Amino acid sequence: MTTHTLILLRHGNSEWNQKNLFTGWVDVRLTEQGVAEAKRAGDLLVAANLLPDVLYTSVLTRAIQTANLALDVADRAWIPVKRSWRLNERHYGALQGKDKAQTLAEYGAEQFQLWRRSFDVPPPPLSDNSEFSQVHDPRYVGIDGALPNTECLKDVIDRMLPYWESDIKVDLAAGKTVLVTAHGNSLRAMVKHLEGISDDAIAELNIPTGIPLVYTLDDNFLPIGAGEYLDPEAAAAGAAAVAAQGAQK
Amino acid sequence: MTTHTLILLRHGNSEWNQKNLFTGWVDVRLTEQGVAEAKRAGDLLVAANLLPDVLYTSVLTRAIQTANLALDVADRAWIPVKRSWRLNERHYGALQGKDKAQTLAEYGAEQFQLWRRSFDVPPPPLSDNSEFSQVHDPRYVGIDGALPNTECLKDVIDRMLPYWESDIKVDLAAGKTVLVTAHGNSLRAMVKHLEGISDDAIAELNIPTGIPLVYTLDDNFLPIGAGEYLDPEAAAAGAAAVAAQGAQK
Repeated sequence: MTTHTLILLRHGNSEWNQKNLFTGWVDVRLTEQGVAEAKRAGDLLVAANLLPDVLYTSVLTRAIQTANLALDVADRAWIPVKRSWRLNERHYGALQGKDKAQTLAEYGAEQFQLWRRSFDVPPPPLSDNSEFSQVHDPRYVGIDGALPNTECLKDVIDRMLPYWESDIKVDLAAGKTVLVTAHGNSLRAMVKHLEGISDDAIAELNIPTGIPLVYTLDDNFLPIGAGEYLDPEAAAAGAAAVAAQGAQK
Repeated sequence: MTTHTLILLRHGNSEWNQKNLFTGWVDVRLTEQGVAEAKRAGDLLVAANLLPDVLYTSVLTRAIQTANLALDVADRAWIPVKRSWRLNERHYGALQGKDKAQTLAEYGAEQFQLWRRSFDVPPPPLSDNSEFSQVHDPRYVGIDGALPNTECLKDVIDRMLPYWESDIKVDLAAGKTVLVTAHGNSLRAMVKHLEGISDDAIAELNIPTGIPLVYTLDDNFLPIGAGEYLDPEAAAAGAAAVAAQGAQK
């Protein structure tokens, strides 16, 4: 049996993580903490001797920064890079730019949790006139009709999977070790697909930032065993921290 | 007439520029000065409102670092990236890793200048056993027979031009503003082709580091007027500094 190696990496702490704002497709940068997380991810790849042959990123700067920093540390800045909006974070609709704690206080825990973790209920759409809209962002010229103004996790899966099939699987099939550097929800979409997690159970899955998650896949591109974090202890702590988000004041 | 915009950018000061060693395909990093040059290149692009739609780089870290830093400053980290060994620096053969001043003293000015600036006389080949050889470098797996062990400028042109035709011109034809971040000799090869510079005269062309050189091309991908540096004064000083290289003790 041929096996394939897939490495998933969620970007580190960003300016809006730090400010506790819903980010989605708003293009914020990593904080100093996020930069340190990205470099450490590179160290973890080197320590595990897991050297990617090809990089996939979203078109959001925080994921690209993370990948560039990690690969630079791993002496792999030179590998081919493919970017796609299909790996972007979930579009948070009208919540983009809003304070999480304030939103929680304003709408209550039930509505808040529904928006954050419902499989198929998206937040209200973001107005094209919003300063947080991407309708005039040059990086999305050409995707036109497909540009979302809000998304639930199901929507993310629906726009991510065609790219998994058309590009990522093809590189895996060619024997390449693939690194995907992306976001909480686009990676959750990928893990749901890989592990066959149910629509209900996926809400409980929290992927920590900055810790490479490694899958060995079989001929059918399905995981052999569970995904393994390169630093399991830090990953558990990180996942708990993500789960607690929004409760911050 | 449709016009096309091509931006050439030579990487900034590297560790081996600083040590005055022949570098070629040896994969050294930028110095702090090189990092500053790359960021300033990004500032110059922003000031000129010249925002690339697609990036081409060599597979050498110093060019990739330069591009990443410049595009990050210009808020264009997200553009598509294509890398090719065909944009690499000239392979300096047996001179790779040697001190320039020492080589000048050992072989004399005539031989030294012949190796540095001859159009069609390459230095002696580099042994596969050399610590400065790339025969075991994973980034060149697949190019096999084409992997050089020395090159003259003519060789660089011969391996660069097919990529210009197959990829770079195609993006220009599609209306994209193309940024090529590469090296003294691969960019000299490109400028020779664009401007129709003779084999003899090209030796006199010195491209300064870190200053974007902008060409407007016509329907036949030939320049309309001369290439323009975004900071002409700094470019003139930089070119003079490059010309003086090797004379350092």
